[in-house]
Amino acid sequence: MPELRYNRLNDFWVIISKERAKRPHDYPVEWRKEVDNIEKCPFEPGREKMTPPEVFAIREEGTQPDTPGWKVRVIPNKYPALRPDEPFYRESEDIHDKMGGFGYHEVIIDTPDHYRHVHDFSVGEIFLILSVYRERMRKLYQNKNIYYVQIFKNHGREAGKSLYHSHSQLVALPRIPKRIDTQIKQCKKYYIEKERCLLCDEIKYEVKEQTRIVYENKSFVVYTPFASAFPFEMKIIPKKHSHDFAQSTDECLTDLSEAVYVAVRKLDKLFENPPFNMILHTSPPVRDLPSDPNYFYSIDKVFHWYLEILPRMAIHAGFELGTEFFINPTPPEEAARYLREKKIEEG
Amino acid sequence: MPELRYNRLNDFWVIISKERAKRPHDYPVEWRKEVDNIEKCPFEPGREKMTPPEVFAIREEGTQPDTPGWKVRVIPNKYPALRPDEPFYRESEDIHDKMGGFGYHEVIIDTPDHYRHVHDFSVGEIFLILSVYRERMRKLYQNKNIYYVQIFKNHGREAGKSLYHSHSQLVALPRIPKRIDTQIKQCKKYYIEKERCLLCDEIKYEVKEQTRIVYENKSFVVYTPFASAFPFEMKIIPKKHSHDFAQSTDECLTDLSEAVYVAVRKLDKLFENPPFNMILHTSPPVRDLPSDPNYFYSIDKVFHWYLEILPRMAIHAGFELGTEFFINPTPPEEAARYLREKKIEEG
Repeated sequence: MPELRYNRLNDFWVIISKERAKRPHDYPVEWRKEVDNIEKCPFEPGREKMTPPEVFAIREEGTQPDTPGWKVRVIPNKYPALRPDEPFYRESEDIHDKMGGFGYHEVIIDTPDHYRHVHDFSVGEIFLILSVYRERMRKLYQNKNIYYVQIFKNHGREAGKSLYHSHSQLVALPRIPKRIDTQIKQCKKYYIEKERCLLCDEIKYEVKEQTRIVYENKSFVVYTPFASAFPFEMKIIPKKHSHDFAQSTDECLTDLSEAVYVAVRKLDKLFENPPFNMILHTSPPVRDLPSDPNYFYSIDKVFHWYLEILPRMAIHAGFELGTEFFINPTPPEEAARYLREKKIEEG
Repeated sequence: MPELRYNRLNDFWVIISKERAKRPHDYPVEWRKEVDNIEKCPFEPGREKMTPPEVFAIREEGTQPDTPGWKVRVIPNKYPALRPDEPFYRESEDIHDKMGGFGYHEVIIDTPDHYRHVHDFSVGEIFLILSVYRERMRKLYQNKNIYYVQIFKNHGREAGKSLYHSHSQLVALPRIPKRIDTQIKQCKKYYIEKERCLLCDEIKYEVKEQTRIVYENKSFVVYTPFASAFPFEMKIIPKKHSHDFAQSTDECLTDLSEAVYVAVRKLDKLFENPPFNMILHTSPPVRDLPSDPNYFYSIDKVFHWYLEILPRMAIHAGFELGTEFFINPTPPEEAARYLREKKIEEG
């Protein structure tokens, strides 16, 4: 029987369509193929001149920028959504409001190997990529006109990936995005009422309840949220309250890498290389206070960062776009059970 | 150069990526094929027993329900997201909130002809479909537990269509959806400040400005919104203030049918059968007042219904899902020019 569930963090409702109760083999296994053209791939070692000059890389000692020898390489996107050389302005055009297209759009090439994808990576390789996320985030927040850095990864064509070679992306924005703004507002509302963090409470409940838990290690827990908008959606979240990913220690990133390793491999085994997005949600820097002095005063107490994995096996159609209701054909409890039981090799 | 634009009605920002300035031929023309299996199609005349019994139809005189002779036929969805036999309740599960999966999910079979799609329909055929939308909406709002009726059409697989035979859908919901709630709040805020309707002002400005106008007739105007989230997005809106689609007269629906005819054919000619969603946004019935008595008092003054066409030529990837920022690679002014100039046969 169907059920409507409230996603408090994001302030939307989800229809959990239990009737359809889609099991893993009810989903298509024929995903749209990505174009694998190694001859033309601009991300191959030795073709560094085909991309804009790198802004950061983890490389073997003694190797030069824009030459081979890198393990993870960061470059400006050749077709950026926003650009650092655009003016930062806010203005109106009669009844309409607009802003300048100032910002950064970078590509993080995850690996020099054309054929390795996120579900092939070792815990150590994932650690390197996450540490590059942290590095770029710290760097870009030094620019006072950057209000939020969104880091994400598109895997598979249904998830929006256009180039085969594994990469992540980063967009540094001149304003706080709506979704983060909503999350902060919701966390703040909860905190004011209860003097507790919304996500700390959620973690505590889910760990006690167990039905939606996929995996747990020393510092992280992976679970399918109660009101998941996507089938087999997972939240990877630090158990200990922490508002800012960019402040993570190496020890923390090691445990996170292990959790990502497990989550991504389980999903891959269950669906044979399904499309998904991996998205980081974290606090904006505290300096970006809206004019209301109460709004951000306790961002460090109020917000709790996490990584989400959104499998893209269902299309958002007219209903979802028209209403912002999501229909999830697999109850998260079912999804968690399948994921929990799926065996993978140890990292 | 890129620009950020505010979509006041929906309260989100859009990145208009002028640099990429995608022209129609920059978009793929190879859409995923829908499965056209007329032998198994449950929507064919003569196979009425393959579907749940019809709840409404426009038929030739003297023909019986669930037999051939219909022009437009409405049936319950065989795999409904919500069901009328589910209980209507609101309750909590420890920290989580939920509601019963009560509601209606219906399929409107647009035509008896397996091979005719919305861009093939005459103005008269479109009129019949729109009058069925109006009929079902009026009917379903008689149920006091139905708070909103969302009507939409998915065309093409990228837009979420799974059955080839042309159809629309309707979901009657036990609460007002988030997007409509946001639109009402935004319209109300604007009205309180200016004592004018937000969309009346927008129409007036766009008609004066002309750069985003695609088509105009006696009662309707079609334009590409200033902060379009989708490339070649169109708004089809009554020029005269009107909050409730269900109250439309036949004369109004005739003019609307003509506008839909033109918009859909132009889009089809420009992209060769592109995927799109057509979504109706209208006022909930006035009886559904939230507890705040000021909230809805002037819904008839505040809200302005419209139909939107959202072409699905760009995938929403990790960035869009993570931020609720949209990236639109074709400025609406460019889109309007292409659409305006595209010639179609007269209705």
